[in-house]
Amino acid sequence: MKNFSYYAPTQVVFGANAEEKIPQLIKCYGGSKVLIHYGGKSAERSGLLGKIEQALTDAGIEHLKLGGVVPNPRLSKAQEGIDLCRREGVDFILAVGGGSVIDSSKCMALGIPYEGDVWDFYAGLAQAKACVPLAAVLTIPAAGSEMSGGSVITKDEGELKWSYDDNLCRCKFAIMNPIRTYTLPPYQTACGITDIMMHTMERYFSQEEMGITDAIAIALLKSVREFGPMVLANPEDYYLRSQIMWAGSLAHNDLTGCGTIGDWGTHNMEHELSALYGVAHGAGLAALWCHWATYVFDAGPARFARFAREVLDVEIEDDVLAAKEGISRMRDFYHSIGMPASIPELIGRKATEEELLLMAEKCSRGRTITNGNFKKLAYEDVLKIYTAANE
Amino acid sequence: MKNFSYYAPTQVVFGANAEEKIPQLIKCYGGSKVLIHYGGKSAERSGLLGKIEQALTDAGIEHLKLGGVVPNPRLSKAQEGIDLCRREGVDFILAVGGGSVIDSSKCMALGIPYEGDVWDFYAGLAQAKACVPLAAVLTIPAAGSEMSGGSVITKDEGELKWSYDDNLCRCKFAIMNPIRTYTLPPYQTACGITDIMMHTMERYFSQEEMGITDAIAIALLKSVREFGPMVLANPEDYYLRSQIMWAGSLAHNDLTGCGTIGDWGTHNMEHELSALYGVAHGAGLAALWCHWATYVFDAGPARFARFAREVLDVEIEDDVLAAKEGISRMRDFYHSIGMPASIPELIGRKATEEELLLMAEKCSRGRTITNGNFKKLAYEDVLKIYTAANE
Repeated sequence: MKNFSYYAPTQVVFGANAEEKIPQLIKCYGGSKVLIHYGGKSAERSGLLGKIEQALTDAGIEHLKLGGVVPNPRLSKAQEGIDLCRREGVDFILAVGGGSVIDSSKCMALGIPYEGDVWDFYAGLAQAKACVPLAAVLTIPAAGSEMSGGSVITKDEGELKWSYDDNLCRCKFAIMNPIRTYTLPPYQTACGITDIMMHTMERYFSQEEMGITDAIAIALLKSVREFGPMVLANPEDYYLRSQIMWAGSLAHNDLTGCGTIGDWGTHNMEHELSALYGVAHGAGLAALWCHWATYVFDAGPARFARFAREVLDVEIEDDVLAAKEGISRMRDFYHSIGMPASIPELIGRKATEEELLLMAEKCSRGRTITNGNFKKLAYEDVLKIYTAANE
Repeated sequence: MKNFSYYAPTQVVFGANAEEKIPQLIKCYGGSKVLIHYGGKSAERSGLLGKIEQALTDAGIEHLKLGGVVPNPRLSKAQEGIDLCRREGVDFILAVGGGSVIDSSKCMALGIPYEGDVWDFYAGLAQAKACVPLAAVLTIPAAGSEMSGGSVITKDEGELKWSYDDNLCRCKFAIMNPIRTYTLPPYQTACGITDIMMHTMERYFSQEEMGITDAIAIALLKSVREFGPMVLANPEDYYLRSQIMWAGSLAHNDLTGCGTIGDWGTHNMEHELSALYGVAHGAGLAALWCHWATYVFDAGPARFARFAREVLDVEIEDDVLAAKEGISRMRDFYHSIGMPASIPELIGRKATEEELLLMAEKCSRGRTITNGNFKKLAYEDVLKIYTAANE
């Protein structure tokens, strides 16, 4: 096992009516002028946005709002927000939505006090030194951004979808009311289930062992595998929605990676899929994972075998056979919750060879980096996995 | 499941040589004059204290020290520290030790800015409004105080051992170097294993279900049950010591209680045992638990049965029988790691009837409160459990 740091300071308020705590918490964390950042019309239609605005007004907290965040959030929108916040003297950002809105908020929060272009952080050219405080009102459990230090932003020119991780931009608090997720469409719910499991799997598939961490990761995966299909069948079940919502945060607040080195190859390859085709991140992960797993599992069959046995109830003694059966059952699982398990299933056609080459090139940043840690993947490996996923 | 808050902001630095980060972290959290608080000679003998002092001196951080914290830490010692810190203008407390030292540090940190007697917090007469920042260099994994908001202090007059819980006094950071625990004697290691499991069990034995939380609690319990005896057999195994050390923090940072209501009856009853006999907390818990469990399990046999099956490998279908077998196996487990499973095994004789009555009276705070939540225990119930544990 590796040395590790664990720092998950976000204050979680979980439950029905959790929103009531928002004004008090904003004051507690020093906010006096708040930008409410959100996506489309659903936050307005559901009444959530109006309720929050009213609560802030009642509490005497100045606020303005900026909507229009799209899935795979754009640098241009964050830059619009940075200008707005500077102009208006905003000192607190409240993200109302899912991962895209929270990531866009993090990008803004990092960009406001930074003299250069906020993209510098995502491009690896600079490290942030300050960040405006921010918080999340979570409505889509999936990305785990509400408790993580990470954010993923897409630069409009070149469709570069890159990530930046920094403890500075962890949310001060996160409001999680499972009832707000009742109306999520099945496809989006399934994308969330996939993403939540994948955040745990990316950490679990490591060459490092860490007993407690592995046990917690397995417990979380098994729970989501069990509760996921149940929540799709019972979308207004408070208990089930709660399980998925809380799992989403725990899957990505670093708990399931303490002492291990995550893989993250599938995530990196997926970012190219969603950058190119604009698909949902969770669906893109499902389209790739089995192909990644088939390509890499011989670098450590025992770990895949444990996953197969403990998460997917495979009862095969031989590690290699168990690993293969586990991958096959994950494919079935994805299909059972309405997720694709290949690129054609994801985008409705085969990717062209040109597209495959472009994605492999971008994923390897012009063949300058490898992806993944369970097995290091050079440009050629990445291309082979994309190609396998295109069958 | 219940609404919940989850707030575990302590920054954990885990691994060999983790101590090297201390000066940098103290500066980061604003400390300029530090009180190093510790227990007996072992911190001096091991060289840890000297190493920390040297590192602070090298970093230009003023520091003084106060040792002499005893197990079941005393209010009088904390009051001595409060006076010292006020006099010397200490603005940061660094606890070097285990739960007793950290709890004493929390008491001091809360007491320094408080005008009244710090015991007010423990007596339920006041709520803290401020706290001097503090951190821990953990050397005894057991109490989990390094990530919790709680502390337990014994008031010298009347041997009142009471607790206070407040997010304000959570450690800013915790340094965890498993190598520092190699020299813990087997009895103390076993006490730690017991306490760690009990912190999870107190939360798990709830009438509330919470899927993810329950799964994590079970994973943690199973891991400690497995690694505990292994570490006793291999006290200088880095991997095994790491498991116990990290489990100790996760068992008490509230993670295993999200959405459930903990019981805490055994803890409350144990506090009277250690207040009266000065025994180690972990050993006191082991002496009581099976008797508590036997007394209460019929209020929810299914939960005890799950514990028996998933943590202790019981293969009995009937819930009541499985629950009973699980309790029996826990008794065997305690014995296997050198822990007592009754009061006579704990103190080497039977408690007198007078002592049992006194403990029941104090635990019920003069028969004004009940203890526990899985099954509410009035004075008479508590007395019956003490009496059963005295056989």
